[in-house]
Amino acid sequence: MQTKIPKPAVNRLCMLYRFLHRLENEGFTTISSSKIAEQLGLGSHNIRKDIGYLGEIGITGSGYDIAKLKTHISQKLGFDRAKKACVVGLGRLGSAIMNFEKFEINGYMIVAGFDSNINVLETIKTNIDVYPAYLIPDIVQRLEIELAVITVPESAAQSVAEKLIEGGIKGIVNFTPFVIKPTRKKIPIRNIDVIGEFDILSALAYLS
Amino acid sequence: MQTKIPKPAVNRLCMLYRFLHRLENEGFTTISSSKIAEQLGLGSHNIRKDIGYLGEIGITGSGYDIAKLKTHISQKLGFDRAKKACVVGLGRLGSAIMNFEKFEINGYMIVAGFDSNINVLETIKTNIDVYPAYLIPDIVQRLEIELAVITVPESAAQSVAEKLIEGGIKGIVNFTPFVIKPTRKKIPIRNIDVIGEFDILSALAYLS
Repeated sequence: MQTKIPKPAVNRLCMLYRFLHRLENEGFTTISSSKIAEQLGLGSHNIRKDIGYLGEIGITGSGYDIAKLKTHISQKLGFDRAKKACVVGLGRLGSAIMNFEKFEINGYMIVAGFDSNINVLETIKTNIDVYPAYLIPDIVQRLEIELAVITVPESAAQSVAEKLIEGGIKGIVNFTPFVIKPTRKKIPIRNIDVIGEFDILSALAYLS
Repeated sequence: MQTKIPKPAVNRLCMLYRFLHRLENEGFTTISSSKIAEQLGLGSHNIRKDIGYLGEIGITGSGYDIAKLKTHISQKLGFDRAKKACVVGLGRLGSAIMNFEKFEINGYMIVAGFDSNINVLETIKTNIDVYPAYLIPDIVQRLEIELAVITVPESAAQSVAEKLIEGGIKGIVNFTPFVIKPTRKKIPIRNIDVIGEFDILSALAYLS
């Protein structure tokens, strides 16, 4: 059991983790909380409080040691373990995501793909095991898959989410514009909606 | 020139627009502001204020007329005009997005694809015109493309964004985990980061 970290702090720590990852790639080794706050558009009070959830972390005159701070976040949020994931809906978008090479280096193993169309399953080119959609609850449970990406047509999103939850999935990234309705067992769902993003950009362009 | 609507209200009105779209598809014809607030997780005071930016809108005992409210948002935010868009980076994800059929029915025309790899341009299967990446500023300007999706490797994201902005692009959806640094001409950029979403879900699962 972990110290309870509020959900918004979890979100911010995840954002911070990815930010530190980029800084490290760009060759930086330390960063101050005020610089973090500025870059992430958050208050530096918030940042210091969030980092406080991680336990004792040394800070020098030049700020936090980026590698150490990353390790602390990684341990606290469980990023240092491998997590199994699956993709449901193996059309163009789904198969692109299934083969996205960045997952593995970030600790995510895509161990299964699902589609309701047998022709899709028979013709898809991938090294990942693929299964018909009715096997979702079985396979998710048997392989202990934690996370799922849904890239099915809107009309199938709800039933797919329910099958995943039946199998014990712990979180869903929903790429359909359909907002999954609450199910008996509540799990976190993150919605990615490209059209929705286009709408916001288009509105801002139109109004500017 | 339009009445000035604050950015957060634009975001919320876009969210509302997509929500109404779904309700309409599900066969609903009216909705109350309290129901909207509940479903979108916003205060009903906020919702009423946002809708207030749209001008005079009738409300009956059963709430807002969904079709009318949609039309008002659409007109105010310029959704009733066709908008041209392009995709830069035609790997698996980019070509999946380029051929995403939902764009057109939502008023977005993907009129160009770009890639720096000539082999990719020569072998890609699509009806959309594709060009080498160095032509981005020219083509964006000539075709008056407003929006772009970036699906290139992280290392190319910044230079691609700068080329798009040079051509006069008005908004970018950035699918790379790289956060585009501010350019001389500021335009809105929306970041979509699947790994980032997985991190949040994985952390919530680990901490629960």
